[in-house]
Amino acid sequence: MKEIPPLEVIGHVESSLTDKELAPKQGSEGAPDAWLVFRPSVREALSDLKKGDEMIVLTWLDRADRETLRVHPRDDPSRALMGVFSTRSAHRPNPIGLHRVRIVSIVDGLRFRVRNLEALDKTPIIDVKPVLGDRDG
Amino acid sequence: MKEIPPLEVIGHVESSLTDKELAPKQGSEGAPDAWLVFRPSVREALSDLKKGDEMIVLTWLDRADRETLRVHPRDDPSRALMGVFSTRSAHRPNPIGLHRVRIVSIVDGLRFRVRNLEALDKTPIIDVKPVLGDRDG
Repeated sequence: MKEIPPLEVIGHVESSLTDKELAPKQGSEGAPDAWLVFRPSVREALSDLKKGDEMIVLTWLDRADRETLRVHPRDDPSRALMGVFSTRSAHRPNPIGLHRVRIVSIVDGLRFRVRNLEALDKTPIIDVKPVLGDRDG
Repeated sequence: MKEIPPLEVIGHVESSLTDKELAPKQGSEGAPDAWLVFRPSVREALSDLKKGDEMIVLTWLDRADRETLRVHPRDDPSRALMGVFSTRSAHRPNPIGLHRVRIVSIVDGLRFRVRNLEALDKTPIIDVKPVLGDRDG
């Protein structure tokens, strides 16, 4: 099996959320607005995104535990352990975060204010995709 | 900015699709059934997935071009160039594929037959997530 070449950090999150114990588990659960700050190297790839658009942001959840294969759903110890691939836990072999957000404003083509992002401050961004109707992704 | 540690290949796709020029662009566009073949190391993470479940599979699109920042949507040269983050093109700095599939059958806890997967044969798998209603991603 071939190896996967290194991921490129294309930007990072600026958020008031800094403590994973206090952060909402999903963006729809009271997450604040936050900034996505992209590197100038990807400016051209961003150029057709507009205020009001919904998009999917993929992040690298750098504070997750990659060895965990089973978790109590929603960190509730009264719930039975479950395989992480049946949960949205950040803990998993490749802790990639999948976030559906709406663009509130864009500054200088590289700073995107977005609604409902539960990712922590300084989380690296690795990809952006458009939403495909109800069946994304 | 800190570096991202290497991605772990957790499995690979077995599909009749081997030519990216001939493959459907989205799973809903006539993609065939395919197998997801996982490594034994992630068996516990898979253990709560069941036949009939929908799930999101993330792959590493190893035949994509990571330098491309603008494309003609759907490879149609009559359409204007667009930033890749406004498209589902495989070409992008981190070519992560996002696929919504349904489990048709499971063999030995590690081989998953799934419906509607447009990924090419031998594509590495990097993550699996449950669908969260209509707003997943």
